[in-house]
Amino acid sequence: MYEGERPKGFRDLTPELMIVRKKVISIIEKVFQSFGFDPIETPAIEYWDTLAGKYGAEAEDRLIWRFQDPLSGRWYALRYDLTVPLARYMKSHQDVPMPFKRYHIAPVWRHEEPQRGRYREFYQCDADIVGSQYPEADAELIELAIKAIDSIGFTEYTFKVNDRRLLSGIFEEEIGLENPIPVYRVIDKLDKIGEEGVRKELQDKMTETTVEKVIKTISLRGKPLEVLREIRVKYGGNKNITEALNHLEEMFNLIEDPRVSVDLSLVRGLDYYTGPIFEVFLEKPRIGAIAGGGRYDNLIGMFLKQSIPATGISLGLERLIDAVIDLGIIKDRRESYTEAYVVYLKPELIKQAWKVASRLRDAGIPTRVDLIRGSPKKQAKRANRLGVKYIVYIGEREVKENRITIYNTLTGERREYTLEEFIGGPAGGG
Amino acid sequence: MYEGERPKGFRDLTPELMIVRKKVISIIEKVFQSFGFDPIETPAIEYWDTLAGKYGAEAEDRLIWRFQDPLSGRWYALRYDLTVPLARYMKSHQDVPMPFKRYHIAPVWRHEEPQRGRYREFYQCDADIVGSQYPEADAELIELAIKAIDSIGFTEYTFKVNDRRLLSGIFEEEIGLENPIPVYRVIDKLDKIGEEGVRKELQDKMTETTVEKVIKTISLRGKPLEVLREIRVKYGGNKNITEALNHLEEMFNLIEDPRVSVDLSLVRGLDYYTGPIFEVFLEKPRIGAIAGGGRYDNLIGMFLKQSIPATGISLGLERLIDAVIDLGIIKDRRESYTEAYVVYLKPELIKQAWKVASRLRDAGIPTRVDLIRGSPKKQAKRANRLGVKYIVYIGEREVKENRITIYNTLTGERREYTLEEFIGGPAGGG
Repeated sequence: MYEGERPKGFRDLTPELMIVRKKVISIIEKVFQSFGFDPIETPAIEYWDTLAGKYGAEAEDRLIWRFQDPLSGRWYALRYDLTVPLARYMKSHQDVPMPFKRYHIAPVWRHEEPQRGRYREFYQCDADIVGSQYPEADAELIELAIKAIDSIGFTEYTFKVNDRRLLSGIFEEEIGLENPIPVYRVIDKLDKIGEEGVRKELQDKMTETTVEKVIKTISLRGKPLEVLREIRVKYGGNKNITEALNHLEEMFNLIEDPRVSVDLSLVRGLDYYTGPIFEVFLEKPRIGAIAGGGRYDNLIGMFLKQSIPATGISLGLERLIDAVIDLGIIKDRRESYTEAYVVYLKPELIKQAWKVASRLRDAGIPTRVDLIRGSPKKQAKRANRLGVKYIVYIGEREVKENRITIYNTLTGERREYTLEEFIGGPAGGG
Repeated sequence: MYEGERPKGFRDLTPELMIVRKKVISIIEKVFQSFGFDPIETPAIEYWDTLAGKYGAEAEDRLIWRFQDPLSGRWYALRYDLTVPLARYMKSHQDVPMPFKRYHIAPVWRHEEPQRGRYREFYQCDADIVGSQYPEADAELIELAIKAIDSIGFTEYTFKVNDRRLLSGIFEEEIGLENPIPVYRVIDKLDKIGEEGVRKELQDKMTETTVEKVIKTISLRGKPLEVLREIRVKYGGNKNITEALNHLEEMFNLIEDPRVSVDLSLVRGLDYYTGPIFEVFLEKPRIGAIAGGGRYDNLIGMFLKQSIPATGISLGLERLIDAVIDLGIIKDRRESYTEAYVVYLKPELIKQAWKVASRLRDAGIPTRVDLIRGSPKKQAKRANRLGVKYIVYIGEREVKENRITIYNTLTGERREYTLEEFIGGPAGGG
């Protein structure tokens, strides 16, 4: 019934898309490595028990791809993110030297309703530091994310920072709130429903005076050290708040980027954060958060029944790619890596064409030889459709004189070379 | 019950393994690209209907990871190889210009019984040419595989070639066999059970004289053009055989590697091959086939109900990696990409350490700053355990004099530099 159909909500990545993706991934990876993060991979599949109870009700009931293996009867799940698998990894590899700085770039699967721009399989690029409770670990992740996003070529974005301890402390002081999670859920919708929307939804939960106090609290934003000073003046007597302020001040002492601000309306969707949280918003195009993360000191050690501090950042590859394409950041869009195409003018010249192609490849020029025969005109047409830079003609005269004729598709120039001239000259970048 | 356990038969890839893998993958990828193959990706998941009936009974009943989605009731399967997904891709993208040369490096999943060296998730590296029925397409894949295997650093291997049409033609001529598939299955075990084993298993199926004819046929091996000549002399009257011989002769006309031989005992496990088939065997270590492939003209078009010629080769990444490690082909085994580690002698110097690290990273040197505080001695111990080349010391005197002290862990030398001297000198490779 579905034979030969692509599953709904899933994509194929064509060469044209893959070439952009690989470029962006390679930039991110290089930045991750430059900060001393090393790659790991974990299986696509985990036991359902490992994922169960970690992501909240919606994920559990609807979003995790889980299944019972008909052969063994066991329940498995496709990984939902890269963080719980990291916690599981830490249990499987207890000899890992701390701090453990790993990156992991890989697909995750979510059972979303298929819709434009939302996929059931998408990549995350995560860098995490396991084993450091200190502010410099959080600061490093902020610097890392900025470096990665800058390196891709983005300039107009804002880097928002908050701290779960600040928010909960202030709510405790101001309105005596013990469990702030339901309030976080409402605040998290601020971007979508606006301040009025948040006000309305909060009114179901608390008195009008309290609502206004929440709104006032989350309106606090600005230059990091200024905002922190303001909070310290007002709530310096609260132990949790002071702890957060000290942590954040040490952290910001290491960060000097004007795009970084403290914003008390930032809450992040996930429940497990315990300290600083961050989110990066692209200003142009306005596609929402392109990266997010924070400190989660209780998650990594859960399978080991001990507390292991950790902090991490995740770049959303799909949004980054969309924005890269949208903004034309990567100029040189191509459908193929191929740079040269060897056209042979007579069937019996295939062996010579073959040898020339082999030499060009050895010289670092990705080269195709025509593989479906036909007239030189048809071969050249295929070369052009592929967008190659050089069409290399091999005719009887060329073979006799030990030369090749090159048509440069960019300049329209046609010239004869010996192979050595061509490799050492135009094709070698000379 | 299984919470926090790694699923049986699955692996984690540690940084140490990942660094070797990424090196091998990058070599393979570069060779694929140099021949004009471009990357695609398809989803990890396909509809079960798409995979059903394509791989034979064992795969169907036992090896494919299939599951019914509890939310939709639909049957899905994890991809079993990269070839059937390519056929599905060709249906989803009918505008792809032909010939379509794609590569795909990705994990596949098989429900194997967990045992040493056999995993339920492993990578394949496939290059396929869709849309050419000509021998030069097969020849290109042979050249591509040789180039890739050579580039990784292997030297002692044999590249066996056969053709399904040759085998079936000779069996038809010699023993009047109409369906040779059951005989192929027995021959396929030759490596495992030896000639005597094959003889014994065949005796259940045919007379002793016939068995000896089969044994004699599959004993035919040697230099490609010589073996082909021998077959032509003997069976030149058979149309299928002649067709195969013409195809193979044109193909070998383009291949001049002494490691390539024709070997009539090669049959390949899969049923779908229609022409030349190949398999590459490493001689040292003797771990069996590291690559295999062949022509399969009926598979790609099956979802389009038309015939589309195709030929492909698949490199088995896991075996290649095992052999690379076993033979010590990649000398520089590392647990981390990190090259420099900044140790700061007093807590208040962290900001200076930070700045030096940032400069080193910008100069292309992957650098860590210590993130868990403690004495300089402890910091240096962590640096050493990581295997870095340079330990960079930042003390009060260094800051005052605007210098850094570098301990080279390879030479044991300790020296002072300005940052510029260091970046321009030892760290810059000068």
